[in-house]
Amino acid sequence: MVKIGVVGYGYWGPNLVRNFFSLPNCIVKTVVDLKTDRLSELKKLYPSIKTTTKMEEVLLDSEIDAVVVATPVSTHFKLGKKVLKAGKHLLLEKPMTTSLSEASKLIKLAKKRKKILMVDHTFLYTDAVQKIKELIEDGEIGKLLYFDSTRTNLGLFQSDVNVLWDLAVHDISILLFLIKEKPLSVQASGVSHTKNKLENIAFLMMKYPSGFIAHFNSSWSSPVKIRLILIGGSKKMIVYNDVEPTEKIKVYESGFKFINSKDPSRVRIDYRIGDINIPKIDLKEGLSSMAKDFISAIMYDKKPISNAQFGLEVVKILSLAQESLKKGEKPVFYK
Amino acid sequence: MVKIGVVGYGYWGPNLVRNFFSLPNCIVKTVVDLKTDRLSELKKLYPSIKTTTKMEEVLLDSEIDAVVVATPVSTHFKLGKKVLKAGKHLLLEKPMTTSLSEASKLIKLAKKRKKILMVDHTFLYTDAVQKIKELIEDGEIGKLLYFDSTRTNLGLFQSDVNVLWDLAVHDISILLFLIKEKPLSVQASGVSHTKNKLENIAFLMMKYPSGFIAHFNSSWSSPVKIRLILIGGSKKMIVYNDVEPTEKIKVYESGFKFINSKDPSRVRIDYRIGDINIPKIDLKEGLSSMAKDFISAIMYDKKPISNAQFGLEVVKILSLAQESLKKGEKPVFYK
Amino acid sequence: MVKIGVVGYGYWGPNLVRNFFSLPNCIVKTVVDLKTDRLSELKKLYPSIKTTTKMEEVLLDSEIDAVVVATPVSTHFKLGKKVLKAGKHLLLEKPMTTSLSEASKLIKLAKKRKKILMVDHTFLYTDAVQKIKELIEDGEIGKLLYFDSTRTNLGLFQSDVNVLWDLAVHDISILLFLIKEKPLSVQASGVSHTKNKLENIAFLMMKYPSGFIAHFNSSWSSPVKIRLILIGGSKKMIVYNDVEPTEKIKVYESGFKFINSKDPSRVRIDYRIGDINIPKIDLKEGLSSMAKDFISAIMYDKKPISNAQFGLEVVKILSLAQESLKKGEKPVFYK
Amino acid sequence: MVKIGVVGYGYWGPNLVRNFFSLPNCIVKTVVDLKTDRLSELKKLYPSIKTTTKMEEVLLDSEIDAVVVATPVSTHFKLGKKVLKAGKHLLLEKPMTTSLSEASKLIKLAKKRKKILMVDHTFLYTDAVQKIKELIEDGEIGKLLYFDSTRTNLGLFQSDVNVLWDLAVHDISILLFLIKEKPLSVQASGVSHTKNKLENIAFLMMKYPSGFIAHFNSSWSSPVKIRLILIGGSKKMIVYNDVEPTEKIKVYESGFKFINSKDPSRVRIDYRIGDINIPKIDLKEGLSSMAKDFISAIMYDKKPISNAQFGLEVVKILSLAQESLKKGEKPVFYK
Repeated sequence: MVKIGVVGYGYWGPNLVRNFFSLPNCIVKTVVDLKTDRLSELKKLYPSIKTTTKMEEVLLDSEIDAVVVATPVSTHFKLGKKVLKAGKHLLLEKPMTTSLSEASKLIKLAKKRKKILMVDHTFLYTDAVQKIKELIEDGEIGKLLYFDSTRTNLGLFQSDVNVLWDLAVHDISILLFLIKEKPLSVQASGVSHTKNKLENIAFLMMKYPSGFIAHFNSSWSSPVKIRLILIGGSKKMIVYNDVEPTEKIKVYESGFKFINSKDPSRVRIDYRIGDINIPKIDLKEGLSSMAKDFISAIMYDKKPISNAQFGLEVVKILSLAQESLKKGEKPVFYK
Repeated sequence: MVKIGVVGYGYWGPNLVRNFFSLPNCIVKTVVDLKTDRLSELKKLYPSIKTTTKMEEVLLDSEIDAVVVATPVSTHFKLGKKVLKAGKHLLLEKPMTTSLSEASKLIKLAKKRKKILMVDHTFLYTDAVQKIKELIEDGEIGKLLYFDSTRTNLGLFQSDVNVLWDLAVHDISILLFLIKEKPLSVQASGVSHTKNKLENIAFLMMKYPSGFIAHFNSSWSSPVKIRLILIGGSKKMIVYNDVEPTEKIKVYESGFKFINSKDPSRVRIDYRIGDINIPKIDLKEGLSSMAKDFISAIMYDKKPISNAQFGLEVVKILSLAQESLKKGEKPVFYK
Repeated sequence: MVKIGVVGYGYWGPNLVRNFFSLPNCIVKTVVDLKTDRLSELKKLYPSIKTTTKMEEVLLDSEIDAVVVATPVSTHFKLGKKVLKAGKHLLLEKPMTTSLSEASKLIKLAKKRKKILMVDHTFLYTDAVQKIKELIEDGEIGKLLYFDSTRTNLGLFQSDVNVLWDLAVHDISILLFLIKEKPLSVQASGVSHTKNKLENIAFLMMKYPSGFIAHFNSSWSSPVKIRLILIGGSKKMIVYNDVEPTEKIKVYESGFKFINSKDPSRVRIDYRIGDINIPKIDLKEGLSSMAKDFISAIMYDKKPISNAQFGLEVVKILSLAQESLKKGEKPVFYK
Repeated sequence: MVKIGVVGYGYWGPNLVRNFFSLPNCIVKTVVDLKTDRLSELKKLYPSIKTTTKMEEVLLDSEIDAVVVATPVSTHFKLGKKVLKAGKHLLLEKPMTTSLSEASKLIKLAKKRKKILMVDHTFLYTDAVQKIKELIEDGEIGKLLYFDSTRTNLGLFQSDVNVLWDLAVHDISILLFLIKEKPLSVQASGVSHTKNKLENIAFLMMKYPSGFIAHFNSSWSSPVKIRLILIGGSKKMIVYNDVEPTEKIKVYESGFKFINSKDPSRVRIDYRIGDINIPKIDLKEGLSSMAKDFISAIMYDKKPISNAQFGLEVVKILSLAQESLKKGEKPVFYK
């Protein structure tokens, strides 16, 4: 039985508490939040959970094995460090930190203390993304050609990070989970319609040595909620529409072939459209599998899927995007 | 009565012939194409139209007032010059030419010869785009914040231009029709999966002095046909989905407001979603209105909506995109 | 503060418990179910609630003011009678009972004991249905002409009632809530693909003196989930698509008019399609408002919206449908 | 080479002319219509076709082999008789006639004169319906359980027949094409909102000896255009959505199975949802294949798919529906 504390009961915290609470081998002992009205709401639903406004009560509680931190990203490094130094396993909400160096320091600290450090990239645990990974690894898609993602809605503007760190972070985690190749360059552009200069609309472009490209369109200012990822391969293409309630993934048998021709100006493509397949996927909550993975990692000392190194790779892409934005939206190299 | 000749009876030619044919004040006298099988197909449908493989038959025919050129863009300049020199009005298929200098030369020539020079940017004539323009000019949308367009399908790869010149050209024409402001910079990125190095997937980003941005996503390699334009304003937002058979335009009353706050780190947005309105629009063919505009321009010597200068502006954006692609996908300035 | 007991923690019970639990002026004291594994699941989520397999514990508990019965409909009469006889207010899951006489007896009993008797017709409390009622009562729709509802999915087959009592019951409750006129006749048809002879696909047709008609299509055997209600009026028409996440109601300004003509064989309709409006509606849970209405009815001794008489009217339509099915699917009169 | 005349150039006539015109082994010689403005419109598009307001010009023209009649259904019998008596093959627009006896008389006459008599049930020739037939005959769907069709729009009200004869006729033809079994009974209900008493909304129900049922929902008064057919089988189910531009047919692997149980009150269904398949279908015009079938039938003296007997069967169902409407909407037996 793993006993955990949760720090932060804001937007995402309730989902984390609900999922960890329902795991058979886990007890949610204490929840910390600065707002007492949030804590009394929690108390009504889960009278068995202790609530407090002081994080120290969790850090000093020797019964607590692990701490889940679901606070704004700008606080992740400081709070995460405290948790690891207190000798507890750590699950950080995504994104891991606001910089690469912070992520590296936490990884070192976790190694030193021999604690599990994991980042909640929930999408890796959804059946849709697992299915897509399976299709790619089984060779059904062929050589990967492109990844094109749109994630928009009329959203809550974050006050400490731009829209890439809030929305594109999901698509970046999905991309890194699906493809092993390292990018050549990262280029970002965007605009801020607020005084704090944080982009509320932003685009990201990654180019790869093999010719593969990834493009991301993120917006907090769209009247419609779009969650659409197109993945093109030499054999098949995948449309992953996360807004669809049940038919989330469509696999198109259609591809395109090059017709050889002596006249180079007459390159043409023979395209054909075959059947479309909508594979059956379970629709269980990804967050539940993520919570299980964290508890298992602690119990059996194994590496979780969404491990610290993975979380760092996501932060690396986001940091390069940030650099590109600063450098006049020019492409920057992935070193 | 205006008598016209049509040069090129390939993909788009039949639509042009059909529309000009049905106008009451226009006679389609002659159609030129190099392929005789295309010409016999036409002959079956329109026995009254003369067909020929020699463009000279049109140029030398003193009865013909105007010529419509619907050939690959790389031939527009050469063929257009011949038409104007032959003293005939000219309608060029979009895009106007492959370069800015070619477009300028044609404009000068047309002025000198006092002939109408027009470019077939059909979308300007659709009721959907007309309605959007009306909404913007009536102030219903408020200050324009962004334009985000996606135009993808599993398409015929062009052999002389990349996907921006083939697909994004439509969206660029719509944007230029809707907004008067001139851009600051143009940045493009893309990838070619063919040996001829022409991008089959490409993205375009335009930034404006006012903070307005425009983003374009164009692909010949998408399993799904998307024609989606989002336009955000300070008061309302428009979703223009051209794949929808009847409900093409949705106007969202929802906007977002800034909440004043002394703490700059706590900028938050109060968003609210009101009614959505789907304005009634006619669904008549834009091409028909375009054809009428050309004939009227000739008959009454007036400037058409999709005039030569407009066509040149579109070519200018496409040329800057081309330049950005060549310069390592860096932003280039609009001079 | 109203203290309640809940009998039945199967499919719907957890939703009832969750909603009553979160009301400020209500305490869920005890939950009864025959299955102890269901009760331990509940206990994990709500340690404060007492659980038992014996309904008597609730009936004999003088602290408990009201009982919610969420068991199969065939048990409603027997259990409901016990609750009322125990001197407690009663909320029955829909449909109220399996027959009109059972419903009448419960109403008499409730009157005698001066207890609130209410039926959980949740849809009456949704913002979508409330909005439609408002549109109709404001005269925006004009004279009502038809109501056409389809409710299908690949569902759990009920073992004690057919699909009309399980699915059409929702649509009937919505119809009765919206229209005051009493029907002339009820006609039903259907088919059973199971050995127990309960229809898994059924259609219901109601005709009204004014010419208004209502049609219902219900199926447990459809590959797709459809929840679509069309309401036609002389001025406007409403499409209520409950599968849509946010744009549930569309109001079409289009109507049709009769063109007077001396030649009776040339009756034609002039139809016109105007703007479409998608009114903003809240998306809060109807069940929560239903729970509030029950508690308010008890506290302030007022008639709830989904009161016993309303529940009886729904049972009456379902009983007439049953009669029509038995009589060779002929129409039967509403007396 | 088959020479044809076309009688009626109203709503559907232009489509017939266009398709017959483009067939290589057919010449459209003459078109008859009472309205001269319709004829001059035709003349502009097809200068080679003779136009006339007198049907006799077609009947007496010995060069004309066959006549296509596309006039209101109430005139089909009278005009069709003339065509056959003039010794010409006959294609009637759907539905064939307004009564069974008229249909029988035309069939007898055609046999006597040894002429092809065919009815334009276009849907039989679409690739979507052909694909569904193939799936059923290959046994992929299993035992057929139900057919449920909805065909609605805001339509032109016909002045000589009700909505069943105008819209449901399509679905009835599809059903009869797909299933060999003869129905037990036919029941119809509906309402007329016009003075001519012709139903503008109507429902049709057919029951079969095997337990199979068919249900039809037809309306000229719906704000939305729906063309949806659900076909349920013991193994698979088909959703045929004709409004979808490319993904018209979806095949659901999901079915339902009966769980054996000694307790008859506990019949439950184990349902499972597998992959969904969207088969590739051509999207060529059904009308073109229909026209070809008529010309082939004449040239090679073979029975067309949509032959006279098939047309009569459709009229039979429609006549029984009419009878049911007259008899107080009671079911009537199929003899």
